[in-house]
Amino acid sequence: MRPSGRDLRQMRPISIETGVMRHAEGSCLIRCGETHVLCSASIEDNPPRFLKGTGLGWVTAEYGMLPRATNTRNRREAAQGKQSGRTQEIQRLIGRSLRAGVDRVALGERQITIDCDVIQADGGTRCASITGGWVALRLAVNKLLKAGVLTSDPIVDHVAAVSCGIYAGQPLVDLDYAEDSEAGTDGNFVLTGKGRLIEVQMSAEGATFSRDQMSTLLDLAEAGMAELVAAQKAATA
Amino acid sequence: MRPSGRDLRQMRPISIETGVMRHAEGSCLIRCGETHVLCSASIEDNPPRFLKGTGLGWVTAEYGMLPRATNTRNRREAAQGKQSGRTQEIQRLIGRSLRAGVDRVALGERQITIDCDVIQADGGTRCASITGGWVALRLAVNKLLKAGVLTSDPIVDHVAAVSCGIYAGQPLVDLDYAEDSEAGTDGNFVLTGKGRLIEVQMSAEGATFSRDQMSTLLDLAEAGMAELVAAQKAATA
Amino acid sequence: MRPSGRDLRQMRPISIETGVMRHAEGSCLIRCGETHVLCSASIEDNPPRFLKGTGLGWVTAEYGMLPRATNTRNRREAAQGKQSGRTQEIQRLIGRSLRAGVDRVALGERQITIDCDVIQADGGTRCASITGGWVALRLAVNKLLKAGVLTSDPIVDHVAAVSCGIYAGQPLVDLDYAEDSEAGTDGNFVLTGKGRLIEVQMSAEGATFSRDQMSTLLDLAEAGMAELVAAQKAATA
Amino acid sequence: MRPSGRDLRQMRPISIETGVMRHAEGSCLIRCGETHVLCSASIEDNPPRFLKGTGLGWVTAEYGMLPRATNTRNRREAAQGKQSGRTQEIQRLIGRSLRAGVDRVALGERQITIDCDVIQADGGTRCASITGGWVALRLAVNKLLKAGVLTSDPIVDHVAAVSCGIYAGQPLVDLDYAEDSEAGTDGNFVLTGKGRLIEVQMSAEGATFSRDQMSTLLDLAEAGMAELVAAQKAATA
Amino acid sequence: MRPSGRDLRQMRPISIETGVMRHAEGSCLIRCGETHVLCSASIEDNPPRFLKGTGLGWVTAEYGMLPRATNTRNRREAAQGKQSGRTQEIQRLIGRSLRAGVDRVALGERQITIDCDVIQADGGTRCASITGGWVALRLAVNKLLKAGVLTSDPIVDHVAAVSCGIYAGQPLVDLDYAEDSEAGTDGNFVLTGKGRLIEVQMSAEGATFSRDQMSTLLDLAEAGMAELVAAQKAATA
Amino acid sequence: MRPSGRDLRQMRPISIETGVMRHAEGSCLIRCGETHVLCSASIEDNPPRFLKGTGLGWVTAEYGMLPRATNTRNRREAAQGKQSGRTQEIQRLIGRSLRAGVDRVALGERQITIDCDVIQADGGTRCASITGGWVALRLAVNKLLKAGVLTSDPIVDHVAAVSCGIYAGQPLVDLDYAEDSEAGTDGNFVLTGKGRLIEVQMSAEGATFSRDQMSTLLDLAEAGMAELVAAQKAATA
Repeated sequence: MRPSGRDLRQMRPISIETGVMRHAEGSCLIRCGETHVLCSASIEDNPPRFLKGTGLGWVTAEYGMLPRATNTRNRREAAQGKQSGRTQEIQRLIGRSLRAGVDRVALGERQITIDCDVIQADGGTRCASITGGWVALRLAVNKLLKAGVLTSDPIVDHVAAVSCGIYAGQPLVDLDYAEDSEAGTDGNFVLTGKGRLIEVQMSAEGATFSRDQMSTLLDLAEAGMAELVAAQKAATA
Repeated sequence: MRPSGRDLRQMRPISIETGVMRHAEGSCLIRCGETHVLCSASIEDNPPRFLKGTGLGWVTAEYGMLPRATNTRNRREAAQGKQSGRTQEIQRLIGRSLRAGVDRVALGERQITIDCDVIQADGGTRCASITGGWVALRLAVNKLLKAGVLTSDPIVDHVAAVSCGIYAGQPLVDLDYAEDSEAGTDGNFVLTGKGRLIEVQMSAEGATFSRDQMSTLLDLAEAGMAELVAAQKAATA
Repeated sequence: MRPSGRDLRQMRPISIETGVMRHAEGSCLIRCGETHVLCSASIEDNPPRFLKGTGLGWVTAEYGMLPRATNTRNRREAAQGKQSGRTQEIQRLIGRSLRAGVDRVALGERQITIDCDVIQADGGTRCASITGGWVALRLAVNKLLKAGVLTSDPIVDHVAAVSCGIYAGQPLVDLDYAEDSEAGTDGNFVLTGKGRLIEVQMSAEGATFSRDQMSTLLDLAEAGMAELVAAQKAATA
Repeated sequence: MRPSGRDLRQMRPISIETGVMRHAEGSCLIRCGETHVLCSASIEDNPPRFLKGTGLGWVTAEYGMLPRATNTRNRREAAQGKQSGRTQEIQRLIGRSLRAGVDRVALGERQITIDCDVIQADGGTRCASITGGWVALRLAVNKLLKAGVLTSDPIVDHVAAVSCGIYAGQPLVDLDYAEDSEAGTDGNFVLTGKGRLIEVQMSAEGATFSRDQMSTLLDLAEAGMAELVAAQKAATA
Repeated sequence: MRPSGRDLRQMRPISIETGVMRHAEGSCLIRCGETHVLCSASIEDNPPRFLKGTGLGWVTAEYGMLPRATNTRNRREAAQGKQSGRTQEIQRLIGRSLRAGVDRVALGERQITIDCDVIQADGGTRCASITGGWVALRLAVNKLLKAGVLTSDPIVDHVAAVSCGIYAGQPLVDLDYAEDSEAGTDGNFVLTGKGRLIEVQMSAEGATFSRDQMSTLLDLAEAGMAELVAAQKAATA
Repeated sequence: MRPSGRDLRQMRPISIETGVMRHAEGSCLIRCGETHVLCSASIEDNPPRFLKGTGLGWVTAEYGMLPRATNTRNRREAAQGKQSGRTQEIQRLIGRSLRAGVDRVALGERQITIDCDVIQADGGTRCASITGGWVALRLAVNKLLKAGVLTSDPIVDHVAAVSCGIYAGQPLVDLDYAEDSEAGTDGNFVLTGKGRLIEVQMSAEGATFSRDQMSTLLDLAEAGMAELVAAQKAATA
């Protein structure tokens, strides 16, 4: 039995509220159970320097967590004077994942920055950031299409992510904090709407795992994706 | 006429939603018009080192702004590796203001940290942070009182803040961004529920001002305070 | 009775020695009692980037304190790797105050940087920095006028500052360290030579205050200003 | 055909020279083709603070690259004042991987730090660091066993890593730089000597991938592991 | 002929004014021509951690330069967020030099920090810092002796420093900025009152030099020392 | 008797292996006894900004030490977020020394960066860095000459360095760590192939020294130079 009482393959309830940050070109508040992330998309007409003159666009991401998003207060990274290795790892993952769903030629020489700020954390914040970040990106690109700045859609498919893990020997999907902190193996799968893989990350945190277990986790992730994509569709319809 | 169309003495609509961050001992989302600030209070049993053995408690504050809280995206302070002078000035002000409403002997040797994170900015973010920060503080202290950790209430009065300025020669209250960026003089008043002054900050940003003008601005602030304290009372009732 | 033995409205003796830093375009050593600050003005032909092409000039300030300016040695900010929030707050105040006395169109596209370095501290270092900084600025501008680089004087009035506070229930002017560290309320007033207000900063540090008390403090500040302006005139005659 | 001319499943020649840093408790220079990494193990009797009193040991890792390990010179991280996100991500991976092969109870309250410094880079530096880091760790632990400090061996199995990727549609193993920089999908597998999985990392860098492709890559990795473990055995015999 | 018009072996006029910083245990303003340095000594009862329990004392130094001590304004190191390599090199030299004149057993477990802040620079600031720093140290130690905290004098001899160089082929002593910036070889000698050598630093900055030239420079330095020691004696009599 | 058992004037065995870093324009691994330093030279077509348009080239150096190059592990400077004062002092010395052997007009507007990374330390790392750094520089310049990019050789002479010191009252050459850490006086001499002096650095670390002793040390250094230059010649022949 999971600490959350959920079935092994049961995702947490997902809600995505859009238009929550009036200045951003696209924004949403995504809630995966008690994990809440504010995502915004900011369009800049200039691409990063290394792309000047290539005709290619860029999508990048930054990630943060409010000090009291967690059970005990964390020190504010701005006050510490640097972003932790964990933060950098996560924001690199978000950016890489979203770029995999974008046609950078169609985007043209501009940059879209996705900011993902965790308001409340209960496990799976990087997955919620990717799923919500895609919604913010979609809304920002819609604005460019509507305004005629872009004529063909640079977004080639949905991108969403789900966490998996092995808890007390059982493969589980969409772990909350209580589950995640006890899981022997921990993973994240980023997939496209059509079920292609973008990123697979699995780490033994105490117990190594087998190919079979990995395969079961991927089955769970594929099943969970359907719900995430449905929520993205509902939010951006 | 004000850009906002408001009357010279008219405050923006205030809303304070509490309990928005499940892990914090106290929290609220304060909305002053289009300025939205998430405030949380975190209790630590250890006071800062300089107070060890004195029997006194401490209230401190940290302030941040999401990168896309503003019209154009600001660089994330954590990524820049330091908090700006403006950020530090604001968080020192919030902490100082809230401490003025607290009996530090009654609080005992513990620290309460108020985090104020601006989700959306439209002028007056430091004032909203103080007004909302007080609510988070009040809720956290209520918890200590309820649990019997504290037996006498260390909060001696409401603390709230309102901005004022001289715009096109006219004294105004509660400026939004459009008004603030054009005001020749800019100020903030922090007051207690009983109308005592905690902090007065007025700066000429282009045009010096007279004692009479300062007096008029203080009249406006005192009037505005009534609405803020009423909102605080409703939120913490 | 004040710890200093001074009358409630009595300023400390002021002395301003000019030409103390041979390389600077303007410089002085200001002594307000035992508070000693070296002030220099440095002219650069290039304004900061955000003013390029606007025709406007800029006056900015930096503030520092020698490690042993105080009773116990403070860590050197350069060794700590950052300026404290207090330092940044003070230097922003000095710059803002001096700019309020300058016609930035008449100054033209150049920048004047005022460096204020506290050699010895005994309360009121930010006020002494503003009063002495104005002298350095005046001398540097005189040089530009004499050389014909400027044809009309960009300095529109004197700018000086005085501290006030409530000590043992009594409003006082020009507090030294012993008085300042015990004052329940603490403030600084920056005024022009004609008595217009540039900046009002009053903070309750233990005891809130009333409008009447603020009014009395402003009376004291206005009286003290006469001495400061006289000293500035004598130094720059 | 691979740029390197190798067969799709052909690993680069591996050489591991031990005892190359006389002060370290364990050390080796691992060469995987033209990728050369110096690995050292340093034993400290004190575990990190969060393990004091738990009876558990810790293995951690740090990673660096000489400025001219690469084709064009990279800025020295020490001179830049921080480790890049990539560096932090890699050193977290190395530490996590090696810990998965260690019985932290048997290690007892001590810390072993593995330093991996890339002397020359030609793709796969993180994998070489893990494979070589394990050798340094093994040698250091041998010393503790020989000295009787440890009585049971805390190392439970070999740990080694191999990169895989999809290049021009073909799954490849052990990519060099020319292959890696053009691969559409890029991955690393960390395995134990018995073939259990420790870490799976696969990223689409331009082209998404299928479950079947992932499965083929894992087949390749498992085959390559045999060579790595043989080289580790030879080096530590 | 030297740019300064001085004879090859002619030192600049030296003046040492003591007691210039009221809070410091010892202080002086040393003027070597137009080079002016404020030196203070601060006594702490605790030695640095690495000396705890050894019975030995420590003397250390920090060095700084006001932004406008020089002909064009330098960026403030505190604002840049770090001390330059040059600053660190100089302060290490000052500390090392002064320690060479101190009996650290007699000093006992305490630390004396010498702060040297250049008010005005015209070449030779590190030498003036050493010579003036010794005076501040002497005065601080006198205070400890007078108070009976120390019973035997830990200062074993005078320590002073003089710059030398080869300018237009001519060996010179005590170079000012105009001479220093054109000298092909540049050096500093730190000596004791009895003429023992503490530190020799000579650098070719454009032209290499011979043993004979080094010998001549040392002759010049020894001659100059007499004047420096006389000034130290006069100041501390 | 020296701890190393060497004769007072006996250098440690020197070996210089070239071509050890395939990407660098010049590289070597220099071994002076148990001190091992990897040196590489990187050519950039752009000189530093302050030389743009002057026709002059630049040679600069960076220095680092692997964390476990020493007996106990040192913290990695990249992880600490800054280079120590010692590191900066050393890399400034290396750059200054090598520049003294280069005709910067003949080099033309390009920069050569010498990286010196200590793999294993046993005293004298800065001297080995200079001696080995010159070899890397020589090899890189040879490449420019061979390619016809340079037509006249900008290297005017060999540059090498040797440490000296006074150990138990005896002047010694080429100190290893055991000798260096106990030496009362410590020094480094940088010389050209023709015996001209580039840099002399001697510091009393516990015992002051006399002119005669300095003279003896210089005799020793000159004798040692012959071996260093011979090794450089053999390596670059």
